[in-house]
Amino acid sequence: MARPRTARTVEHPDLSEVSLQQVLEALVDPVRRLVVAQLAAADEDMSCGTFEAPVSVSTLTHHFNVLREAGVIRQYYVGTTKLNALRADDMEQRFPGLLGAVLAASAAEGGAVPA
Amino acid sequence: MARPRTARTVEHPDLSEVSLQQVLEALVDPVRRLVVAQLAAADEDMSCGTFEAPVSVSTLTHHFNVLREAGVIRQYYVGTTKLNALRADDMEQRFPGLLGAVLAASAAEGGAVPA
Repeated sequence: MARPRTARTVEHPDLSEVSLQQVLEALVDPVRRLVVAQLAAADEDMSCGTFEAPVSVSTLTHHFNVLREAGVIRQYYVGTTKLNALRADDMEQRFPGLLGAVLAASAAEGGAVPA
Repeated sequence: MARPRTARTVEHPDLSEVSLQQVLEALVDPVRRLVVAQLAAADEDMSCGTFEAPVSVSTLTHHFNVLREAGVIRQYYVGTTKLNALRADDMEQRFPGLLGAVLAASAAEGGAVPA
């Protein structure tokens, strides 16, 4: 019998189902790029509350969802804590060079969020 | 004396003035990616009327302007014909790998414009 889906299960797309359009729409938002840059710079997966971003918690939750649905991040629970991981290898396989180029350009600009 | 600006002069940004945000906003539009892909595939600069795109001439003119202001294309006149060139080298210097990654992903998807 299939395991029932609960609130503690998070769905992730196979990258083959994700279009370039969807990934660019995810990465065009400066707050989402900030999230991705912090994940890329971190040594470990990050819980939702540990990101620095100039938006409310509910807005940040929306951004996490967009990134997850575009295949850019993976979210999973450890107990009641939701953790976020960059799907860097999956992205590299599906869109070679894209995430790295965006992260490098973002870092070169100091990772600033446009006003 | 400075040459007066006329309708036949087109202004282009120095790439140092262009932000990652501006370039991503230019490339997130599927019709603009179609324009860029056709320029990348062409052996020569293309006049505005030679692009295949599912939009009106005035809409296409708008897309050319956005691409030019983001530093992605250069436009110049030969007589009364406006020609378009990809600023691939300038882009590569300012945002290494970005345009190539987008073009490769676009080509891998067959260059289709999402409905």
